Amino acid sequence: MDFQGYFPIWDKLAPGHQEMLLDNLTERNIKKGAVIHNGDMDCTGLLLVRSGQLRAYILSAEGREITVYRLFDRDLCLFSASCMMRSAQFDITIQAEKDTRLWVIPAEVYRQVMEQSAPAANYTNEVMAARFSEVMWLMEQVMWKSLDKRVAAFLLAEAAIEGTLLLRLTHESIANHLGTHREVVTRMLRYFQSEGMVRLSRGAVEIMDEKKLAALGNT
Amino acid sequence: MDFQGYFPIWDKLAPGHQEMLLDNLTERNIKKGAVIHNGDMDCTGLLLVRSGQLRAYILSAEGREITVYRLFDRDLCLFSASCMMRSAQFDITIQAEKDTRLWVIPAEVYRQVMEQSAPAANYTNEVMAARFSEVMWLMEQVMWKSLDKRVAAFLLAEAAIEGTLLLRLTHESIANHLGTHREVVTRMLRYFQSEGMVRLSRGAVEIMDEKKLAALGNT
Repeated sequence: MDFQGYFPIWDKLAPGHQEMLLDNLTERNIKKGAVIHNGDMDCTGLLLVRSGQLRAYILSAEGREITVYRLFDRDLCLFSASCMMRSAQFDITIQAEKDTRLWVIPAEVYRQVMEQSAPAANYTNEVMAARFSEVMWLMEQVMWKSLDKRVAAFLLAEAAIEGTLLLRLTHESIANHLGTHREVVTRMLRYFQSEGMVRLSRGAVEIMDEKKLAALGNT
Repeated sequence: MDFQGYFPIWDKLAPGHQEMLLDNLTERNIKKGAVIHNGDMDCTGLLLVRSGQLRAYILSAEGREITVYRLFDRDLCLFSASCMMRSAQFDITIQAEKDTRLWVIPAEVYRQVMEQSAPAANYTNEVMAARFSEVMWLMEQVMWKSLDKRVAAFLLAEAAIEGTLLLRLTHESIANHLGTHREVVTRMLRYFQSEGMVRLSRGAVEIMDEKKLAALGNT
């Protein structure tokens, strides 16, 4: 399937706008681990994921990270093109979590289409509202939830994404998703292990008692 | 000045859309302290502030609060009408911080205008991007900044909003803005007082050394 099949509101666009998008697209393959966009870069453009997985995160001055949202097949990343919105004043970093195939739409081209096309602008609204909801969810998590519950919920979410209970994750990477320190995660995972919820090995965390972990993560 | 003068993109709307908005507006006076919208309410509608001040906050299960953003004259509140966006999945509470005069636009009317009008949809995009930026700013604050710096920055922001160094604020209300407990704020303010940065009295905090407070808040 081509771009037409992946871009959700393709059929609602005027032929002229469809042409503008097609004429200016580029397709790219991004290696797992590569940073596609960060605050220092010029406007990278909108990213439409064909296959793979991206994560968007923010960085502290000291280099700590927290994952804000993730993007999967058919998801559109707006904030790698935040230059097209005057009011979007924040820096976000986008990194490939898996080998990813995606299309890049130049920000200026998308802005022009959006300016003229109510369907494109409304679709963009919906995408932004979805990201907004994810950020609000995260805000509630970091404000009101203790870290043990957040680690538990994160492990379960990973298991759902990967379709396996054996998670190839370092303590460092878990800390970077949750905005905390590796040492804190290590202590927490050891406690989980002592309670029989996980088994730890080099570079992996295996979920042993999904139910108990879920009971913790969902409170 | 009337609604036409307050709604930023009035001149870009088609006459039919202008009429739809005008025919369905209501003007309301909200008393300081009143809650205009919360998650349990049906879609309250979009709010356009004529004069006054609103705050949008989230609530924990235990009743803790944190201010997410504030709205002043000419600001438009979208998330009191989040029913009009499928993807907006979060609860926010809107409260008047001062006596406020505002217009309410029914969500369904605005949605119809937005669906047909590229300028209205693009304007809505800009408003959402601005709120998104505020939420991301807040996320960075709560993740990476210690509470002494956040209290200092909050007091200075209040002084700028009110145009005075004598702030009528209880410790409880500061805690509710920052998502923490009253006791923690009291302890912090006493420390600020011992350092000569503020003077505390019943129901008020007076800033005595703006420079020192700014040096703390901006680090």
